[in-house]
Amino acid sequence: MREVKRKFGERFVDDPALLSLYSREASFEEPAAGPLGIVYPVNEEEVAWLVKWAYENDITLYSQGSATSLSGNTILTKPGLIVSFEKMANIVEVNPTDSYTVVQPGIRIEELNVELARYGVFFPVDPGSVRSATIGGAIANGAGGMRGAKYGSMRDWVLGVNVVTGRGDLLKLGCRTLKCRNGYDLVRLIVGSEGTLGLVTQAVLRVAPLPESAVAVRVYYNDISSLVEDVVRIKSARIWPLFAEFMGPAESEEVGLNRAYTLFVGVDVNRGAEGGILARLKSALTGHIADEAIGIEEAMRLLEPRRRLFSAQVSIMRRQLGDQGVLVIEDVVVPVSKLPEAVRRIAELAQKLEVPLSIGGHVGDGNLHPTTWFKRGDLEGAKRARRFIEGLGKIAVELGGSVSAEHGIGTLKRELLRLELEPAVLEYMRSLKAVFDPKGILNPGKII
Amino acid sequence: MREVKRKFGERFVDDPALLSLYSREASFEEPAAGPLGIVYPVNEEEVAWLVKWAYENDITLYSQGSATSLSGNTILTKPGLIVSFEKMANIVEVNPTDSYTVVQPGIRIEELNVELARYGVFFPVDPGSVRSATIGGAIANGAGGMRGAKYGSMRDWVLGVNVVTGRGDLLKLGCRTLKCRNGYDLVRLIVGSEGTLGLVTQAVLRVAPLPESAVAVRVYYNDISSLVEDVVRIKSARIWPLFAEFMGPAESEEVGLNRAYTLFVGVDVNRGAEGGILARLKSALTGHIADEAIGIEEAMRLLEPRRRLFSAQVSIMRRQLGDQGVLVIEDVVVPVSKLPEAVRRIAELAQKLEVPLSIGGHVGDGNLHPTTWFKRGDLEGAKRARRFIEGLGKIAVELGGSVSAEHGIGTLKRELLRLELEPAVLEYMRSLKAVFDPKGILNPGKII
Ligand SMILES: Cc1cc2nc3c(=O)[nH]c(=O)nc-3n(C[C@H](O)[C@H](O)[C@H](O)COP(=O)(O)OP(=O)(O)OC[C@H]3O[C@@H](n4cnc5c(N)ncnc54)[C@H](O)[C@@H]3O)c2cc1C
Ligand SMILES: Cc1cc2nc3c(=O)[nH]c(=O)nc-3n(C[C@H](O)[C@H](O)[C@H](O)COP(=O)(O)OP(=O)(O)OC[C@H]3O[C@@H](n4cnc5c(N)ncnc54)[C@H](O)[C@@H]3O)c2cc1C
Repeated sequence: MREVKRKFGERFVDDPALLSLYSREASFEEPAAGPLGIVYPVNEEEVAWLVKWAYENDITLYSQGSATSLSGNTILTKPGLIVSFEKMANIVEVNPTDSYTVVQPGIRIEELNVELARYGVFFPVDPGSVRSATIGGAIANGAGGMRGAKYGSMRDWVLGVNVVTGRGDLLKLGCRTLKCRNGYDLVRLIVGSEGTLGLVTQAVLRVAPLPESAVAVRVYYNDISSLVEDVVRIKSARIWPLFAEFMGPAESEEVGLNRAYTLFVGVDVNRGAEGGILARLKSALTGHIADEAIGIEEAMRLLEPRRRLFSAQVSIMRRQLGDQGVLVIEDVVVPVSKLPEAVRRIAELAQKLEVPLSIGGHVGDGNLHPTTWFKRGDLEGAKRARRFIEGLGKIAVELGGSVSAEHGIGTLKRELLRLELEPAVLEYMRSLKAVFDPKGILNPGKII
Repeated sequence: MREVKRKFGERFVDDPALLSLYSREASFEEPAAGPLGIVYPVNEEEVAWLVKWAYENDITLYSQGSATSLSGNTILTKPGLIVSFEKMANIVEVNPTDSYTVVQPGIRIEELNVELARYGVFFPVDPGSVRSATIGGAIANGAGGMRGAKYGSMRDWVLGVNVVTGRGDLLKLGCRTLKCRNGYDLVRLIVGSEGTLGLVTQAVLRVAPLPESAVAVRVYYNDISSLVEDVVRIKSARIWPLFAEFMGPAESEEVGLNRAYTLFVGVDVNRGAEGGILARLKSALTGHIADEAIGIEEAMRLLEPRRRLFSAQVSIMRRQLGDQGVLVIEDVVVPVSKLPEAVRRIAELAQKLEVPLSIGGHVGDGNLHPTTWFKRGDLEGAKRARRFIEGLGKIAVELGGSVSAEHGIGTLKRELLRLELEPAVLEYMRSLKAVFDPKGILNPGKII
């Protein structure tokens, strides 16, 4: 450790208060060990040096952006060093003509978009945590978000990455163009690898032109099935939503809306076509249309209450448990047509296990975020929460979906992944891990 | 081989005429060996059986769709068996609500789209060879196409694949939803792997709603720089084209247009917004607007002459060389803003090497298809063509682009790939290959 201290100076930290702060993430997963220190590299060379040193000294490394992960993606499973990318947060280049930007991993998505807006372009992956989430964390988590129904997730928007593997090799992968066929697609192997294959030190991101205009509606329903059926109806009307988000009655009330299932649908349209599309959208809907918006900023504003889902859930929990509550935000995905059945079965599951349930999600792409909570220290409650997570995964897989849509596997869903994937697939994944990180020093105990 | 004959019966073929027919592809790469036979599996089980047998008997396997490859992707480098997917060409499921379709690998893209149109959806990857190209070949080649400026390439549209690896393991990868985070992204490792990691036996493809409407223009230019500058101008006007394709003066004349650089631009729009967008598009253009179209079918019809680029090039070549000509369709990509410089340097290169040059491509995403030809048997001409390919690759890499945008590496660009990627990256690719195909029986001698 002496060499690390010498190399990083004040950018090596082992103050216990900070160590404890950096040991936690937004999930309820508990670290199995304490960090030996936090290192803040400022450039690629330092990252490569650090990994080589860790390789030689058998020290595990845990990459960290803003630690907003929800599946135990960042937490320590053994004593090791936390590598924080906070100090590598620059925008290296914005090139609107060529539709890309080059950034360091520590930049927050929202910060990036503020800068990109000056060029008339934007980065469309938009997780609920967009204010904190870093590009490096979003890449490693393969994050999705509010605009996923139209724009997909990180894998669609990362053109290239520089990455330091577990052997300390710096690999420059991908390209700066929308298409390139330069051998195997290692870029997308890194996307979603949760810091287990390499440390991302730079990324080339695709950017899109800002939509010209948009329309949006907020719609109330008495039951979730009618809400989902309306989403299907919108798709049948050949409308491809920019977003289709929803939240449950208690949460809607909490953010100041009616006590009803609330659907938020936005569609990007050409300027001048707003009236026509809004009319078509509304005529496809059977729910109670409570609000509508025309214009891209107005449409985004209409979505604002949905962005407060998280804080609404926290408030509801606080009323029940005071400040002793532990929130568990889950993440599963099923084909859109299976959403009504999924929601019905999830409600039954919560009832059976006697856990509180709050629900919301990205209904446009079949992604649900069922949420529950328990009292800190209530071991029985924590156990029920874990059984709930397990049950959710089973329901998702049975309905042809996945145990995670966007939060990833981390420590939390390692066992569940075995439910979804056959042993042979896991074996290949393990072999890939061994290629990139033969000593298992990068974020051990996650995914596989 | 006796067991293979017994297993496949009449679906094992070793008729010399057929063997010779299947030994060639659309590129000018020559096979280094003759096939031992052609096998036509009809299901997954047969494919898995065949690979296991090949593994045990050290026989190499060369997957084949329609053999329209242009980089030596399919041709034999050693004696082995050709695996044709012609008899695995069914559509298994079309699910417009959930935005996916499940298909066997041998189906042709155009056939698939005819069927999908009945459901109001389409599969947007649209290579020039769309009438012949199969889904399996397009996946393995990571193909792009005419609508690439907006819709990207295969990697964006493949949700899941079943694949038999070189160890004979059947892996079911990916999912049926737009997002899923079930471990490492092996799906996109298979996309673009050119049959070297596994044989694709089934695919889940994402489909998109048919665009509501579109507008398009055909524009003439005296020089290529003005054409490219107009493409940049369109992007600056925040128009995101559905297609932006071009071809050179001789080729334009050959298909019945003016002798000028011809740009084809299409934009998908909302119904009702056609007039406004068409006006904005036209006001961003400085070239001579020769034709315009409103409506999606009309816009696609306007693009038709561009689809005849290939046959135009063949005609021009024939007038020079009779039926002795060998056409070499190249494929490089540079950032859009570098296109004028790329085109200038490519013309200089052709002049210096004294090779004929015809040019066209997907200008919207920076993808050029410079094309040349030589007389069959003219060894000096063939050598010059190879030097031309090498020079193209160098220009692309120097301008921040790639040696291939969409045709892939095959045998033709193996050396060039070394120009673009650092040795460390190639080493990791070689290790990945060894995980999936430790004996090197799948399409050996391609990519790495
Ligand atoms: C309220 C709330 C809402 C959320 N909504 C969404 C949502 O809508 N969609 C969604 O997808 N997620 C969502 N999340 C989860 C999470 O915020 C995202 O995955 C986010 O992208 C993580 O970014 P981060 O910077 O916090 O990464 P961290 O949590 O710090 O790290 C994430 C993973 O990446 C690794 N990592 C971090 N930086 C690097 C690097 N430079 N190189 C290699 N590995 C690295 C870590 O080791 C870890 O495995 C939400 C979380 C919260 C708390
Ligand atoms: C005139 C012309 C225009 C073209 N335009 C374009 C274009 O615009 N964009 C573009 O990207 N390409 C283009 N191409 C190249 C080529 O047509 C595409 O890459 C096409 O997708 C290949 O499909 P195929 O069925 O012919 O595959 P093949 O050529 O038969 O095979 C392609 C590769 O896939 C492998 N393969 C085939 N089937 C399987 C399977 N089931 N499992 C595993 N591996 C398999 C083969 O081994 C080979 O490596 C063009 C070619 C021509 C001749």
